[in-house]
Amino acid sequence: MSRVVLKLGGSVVTEKDEPETVDTEALERVATAIGEWYTDERAAGTDLLVVHGGGSFGHHHAAAHGVSRETGSTDTQAVRDIHGAMQDLNEAVVGALADADVPAVPVHPFSAGYRTPEGLLFYPAEPTASMLSEGFVPVLHGDVVAHAGEGATILSGDELVVELAEGLGATRVGLCSTVPGVLDDADEVISEIVDYEDVADYLGESESTDVTGGMAAKVRALLGLRAAASVFGPDDVGPFLRGEEPGTVIRGE
Amino acid sequence: MSRVVLKLGGSVVTEKDEPETVDTEALERVATAIGEWYTDERAAGTDLLVVHGGGSFGHHHAAAHGVSRETGSTDTQAVRDIHGAMQDLNEAVVGALADADVPAVPVHPFSAGYRTPEGLLFYPAEPTASMLSEGFVPVLHGDVVAHAGEGATILSGDELVVELAEGLGATRVGLCSTVPGVLDDADEVISEIVDYEDVADYLGESESTDVTGGMAAKVRALLGLRAAASVFGPDDVGPFLRGEEPGTVIRGE
Repeated sequence: MSRVVLKLGGSVVTEKDEPETVDTEALERVATAIGEWYTDERAAGTDLLVVHGGGSFGHHHAAAHGVSRETGSTDTQAVRDIHGAMQDLNEAVVGALADADVPAVPVHPFSAGYRTPEGLLFYPAEPTASMLSEGFVPVLHGDVVAHAGEGATILSGDELVVELAEGLGATRVGLCSTVPGVLDDADEVISEIVDYEDVADYLGESESTDVTGGMAAKVRALLGLRAAASVFGPDDVGPFLRGEEPGTVIRGE
Repeated sequence: MSRVVLKLGGSVVTEKDEPETVDTEALERVATAIGEWYTDERAAGTDLLVVHGGGSFGHHHAAAHGVSRETGSTDTQAVRDIHGAMQDLNEAVVGALADADVPAVPVHPFSAGYRTPEGLLFYPAEPTASMLSEGFVPVLHGDVVAHAGEGATILSGDELVVELAEGLGATRVGLCSTVPGVLDDADEVISEIVDYEDVADYLGESESTDVTGGMAAKVRALLGLRAAASVFGPDDVGPFLRGEEPGTVIRGE
């Protein structure tokens, strides 16, 4: 059995500079690539889970309410604004996938997880695993999450990818971003990363607090996974799903 | 500490005969009663969880797609239709409660639970408990849920009430229905039920399969709870929350 976790970056599927606007064309393009693989080329027994980020839907609400991964809010308007916008974007992503014949179903992480007082995420994998077993393609999104002592904090799509890739035993992980991979200082794609030290010069110190989900935090988190993870641009969704390793492949030990 | 689980019947908050139509006036009335208690009269340390049914939002989609508690569907259009309509109703209920100054937040059970091949519901209580601890009022709804071997089946509001009342250690359970309580054969409200046998003549055999969540199934399930449960009409939401026992109180052993 093979299990693929695919993240669609928020900036890939939304218009970055227009609040709550889907980039319909870009979304359709990646949905079509996913659909062609899913219906025609996917090996039997391979399942797929999709996670998407917030882009122009989640981020401005989070910023406006001063909510981050560490700093929460007990204001239910903040929770409803962020969650509601992400739910709208999720509906668009699920709809585009459905139009491409992918059996996509919506999953809202605020309903399913929480953080301990130390900020550790608790996210039971069984409900999502159960959807996969029934042949559905669960589509999760960056969201808010109840956080003991903080009200609700941000749960990013990247954090969900790492959590679920481990919890569900993913065999392959792909992050579709607006850039074609992890770039070195000459803006060339690094083909493989096996140790953070090898790329620390390009990405910054591993100590940096990267709350926005930038590349340094992504790479560090992906190095911790058992599965290999690829970072690639929108044109490489199809090649990744077909088993190639476009962009940058990140292999932890 | 005191923990109240309140169910708002789908027929209380929707126009029964108009597909996907909220009964705005009735919803506002119960939301106001909840808000007055929550903000002015609630004892410190008492928290509240709200569950609502489907009414004219969920039921016709479920019927159209032939989905019930036992019979599932792997058609994602069925899942999306039922879940989407319930999400819309949930948004209206959460909005009405927010307008009445209740710190309501939306919870979508499809994201959080699943059924085993035997149809047993697995619904982790921790995410909801975490919201309660942070001072939120989680508002859950009847929904679909992944069901091993069946695709997705219906998870009713009543089933959620029973599951969460036990899982969260509710001290009081209230079911607001369109009738003023459990009725005897003269249509009089029965004030107390402690044994199903005492009311079997009015409600039918306990063997009956009551997939629509009728009164017999409700009473049997509520008799299994550790907490006392009250069944009452829309005018008695305030009195129930203030600690009275309007309508019918059901006390299991």
